[in-house]
Amino acid sequence: MNTVTDTLVWPDWNAKEDLKRLREAVPLTHCITNVVVTNFSANVLLAIGASPAMAIASEESGGFAKIAGGVLINIGTITRIDKESMLIAAAAAQEAGTPWVLDPVAAGASEIRTNTIRELLPFKPSVIRGNASEIIAVSGAAGNVKGPDSTESSGTALPYAVELALKTGSVVAVSGEVDYVTDGKKIIAVPGGHVIMTKTTGTGCALGGVMAAFLAVTGPLRAAAAASLVYAETGKRAAQAVRGSGSFAVKFLDELSLIGKEY
Amino acid sequence: MNTVTDTLVWPDWNAKEDLKRLREAVPLTHCITNVVVTNFSANVLLAIGASPAMAIASEESGGFAKIAGGVLINIGTITRIDKESMLIAAAAAQEAGTPWVLDPVAAGASEIRTNTIRELLPFKPSVIRGNASEIIAVSGAAGNVKGPDSTESSGTALPYAVELALKTGSVVAVSGEVDYVTDGKKIIAVPGGHVIMTKTTGTGCALGGVMAAFLAVTGPLRAAAAASLVYAETGKRAAQAVRGSGSFAVKFLDELSLIGKEY
Amino acid sequence: MNTVTDTLVWPDWNAKEDLKRLREAVPLTHCITNVVVTNFSANVLLAIGASPAMAIASEESGGFAKIAGGVLINIGTITRIDKESMLIAAAAAQEAGTPWVLDPVAAGASEIRTNTIRELLPFKPSVIRGNASEIIAVSGAAGNVKGPDSTESSGTALPYAVELALKTGSVVAVSGEVDYVTDGKKIIAVPGGHVIMTKTTGTGCALGGVMAAFLAVTGPLRAAAAASLVYAETGKRAAQAVRGSGSFAVKFLDELSLIGKEY
Repeated sequence: MNTVTDTLVWPDWNAKEDLKRLREAVPLTHCITNVVVTNFSANVLLAIGASPAMAIASEESGGFAKIAGGVLINIGTITRIDKESMLIAAAAAQEAGTPWVLDPVAAGASEIRTNTIRELLPFKPSVIRGNASEIIAVSGAAGNVKGPDSTESSGTALPYAVELALKTGSVVAVSGEVDYVTDGKKIIAVPGGHVIMTKTTGTGCALGGVMAAFLAVTGPLRAAAAASLVYAETGKRAAQAVRGSGSFAVKFLDELSLIGKEY
Repeated sequence: MNTVTDTLVWPDWNAKEDLKRLREAVPLTHCITNVVVTNFSANVLLAIGASPAMAIASEESGGFAKIAGGVLINIGTITRIDKESMLIAAAAAQEAGTPWVLDPVAAGASEIRTNTIRELLPFKPSVIRGNASEIIAVSGAAGNVKGPDSTESSGTALPYAVELALKTGSVVAVSGEVDYVTDGKKIIAVPGGHVIMTKTTGTGCALGGVMAAFLAVTGPLRAAAAASLVYAETGKRAAQAVRGSGSFAVKFLDELSLIGKEY
Repeated sequence: MNTVTDTLVWPDWNAKEDLKRLREAVPLTHCITNVVVTNFSANVLLAIGASPAMAIASEESGGFAKIAGGVLINIGTITRIDKESMLIAAAAAQEAGTPWVLDPVAAGASEIRTNTIRELLPFKPSVIRGNASEIIAVSGAAGNVKGPDSTESSGTALPYAVELALKTGSVVAVSGEVDYVTDGKKIIAVPGGHVIMTKTTGTGCALGGVMAAFLAVTGPLRAAAAASLVYAETGKRAAQAVRGSGSFAVKFLDELSLIGKEY
């Protein structure tokens, strides 16, 4: 039933072309994200060639969402105040036709998370991106969610991702040992990456930002897949010859600014 | 009067055993901490083998405190809103029996800090961790506090630490050239570390998170001492052949993921 | 009309002397800054030899502003709550005679930014520091502002900087390929730096903090110029032999702790 339609391997020419267009466009990418990863996310976006805006106030989140090329809403350290700002940004994005990414961090772990996701979904995110536990939780299944780390494999989450995509009309991306990206019909597998990415805070969250930047130059399925592929390949390269997560994060930013410029 | 009972030197077999158990348990470690150090603290916890949760909202801080293996409450950039969330988390931790660490950053520097600490103490932190100026201030003595940097040595703070431990029933840990950990009766000295740690923001704050992770697998005195020892030894290793605080922070995370796995 | 009065090149003996005095004074430098750059800014201040305090609550921002050697107010991720705290800090700084820096990030991009800047200016910042787009916007000209990245060159902004300095009595510093610092009469050019600084989030924001630290030991024009020069030279050194923004940020902190100690 959940047959993989396509497997992306670097260099995939479409992904490479999308990356080139992203770098030419330097899209304003507006992130309302959690306080743990703001710095890393902004640096990831700069490294890949986007122009990050990290404004969070409800007074201006709608304005930024309107003029941005893509928007990320990440509920990692959500508060009442952030929630208000996120709902305004999502509404403005939908109204203005700005594509946006929902990252439902630790979905299912608390009521404020569940309610925020429920209230955000009607604004039609272009992409819903999470780890396996999060995607299972958003799809409505009861999960064993404790914190932001996944307790399930991406393969386990795949049927839930397909169902969620069909139900919402969003492209759904599941991160894991293999990433899966689906619109409910097609299923794109993106192998690669490295386990050290799960030991470096913010890698998943920043991927949501990269997807938002790709959305400025291509459609949701291709944007989510290209972002996942560029990310996985960069992770693989950066993991070579590093001793731990400290040097990995540094090398990841370096490699991200270089990938696709090889020749 | 303040005679050191024990001096820990790496490899201390108890500390090493505790570290091994921490890595096997991968304890959910819930940190309500300041905005300066959230990223570094999460990376430190991942590097040592814990699973960090950095949720801050009062709507969910109690829930996380209940299911966590250990909790850190750090008042570094406290606001009214954070204070509410911290009090809920502390109460929930006490009720659920979750051990927790109080880091009274810049205690004495303002009324909101003094009041927050006074209101948190009745919820019985397992460990109170700070630099010398902070521990002196929390013990009720008038100190010369300006900012988060200590103006006193850990040795000067030792009698105040003992008194504070006896008064509160908490284990008290003072960071400095030599770290001291005491329950009011025993005094454990942990030499080591490196002065560059004081030039790298968040090292002290993240140590509070590491203590919270150790609390998930052992008692307060041993947890605070083991965390201090692992930290001091890692700091010493990381400081070798680095040029400044930039490369130190990177190497510190790398070494933290490797310590104790030597053979 | 806008004739450069002086061009600073490292080692400028005045700047070097100011840096030495900064390191001897270890000035408490209070930053109310944006959530993207708090960590990097604190590390930059520690690396250069200052003592950062990053307190944000309105309950204590005035108190810190009173005892600090210098204050930075940066509106990068401003909210209603931050705005209250910033106004209190600015008023307290003016009253106590504490010099302070205003960094009007993304000025012109939203009403909350425009209003906050308008309400802060009467408290007489010692230095207004921004990129070209920001300085043009603060000077009252209609600009093409989207996000925090500048769309103009520092040369284009120079006449606006001079006008703004004359109108406000503040020293105005414009960052760019060449930095300009002016009090409306003198114009100091600071060439150097490296383009990778624009690809590393927080470099501009942290420069505001460094200016605040220099203000503790010297007057506004000299402080802004010395900070710009030390920064540009450090950037140039750090950019050597790095692969991307990840390793640049690390090396920048390392070099910042070493500059001026060469002999």
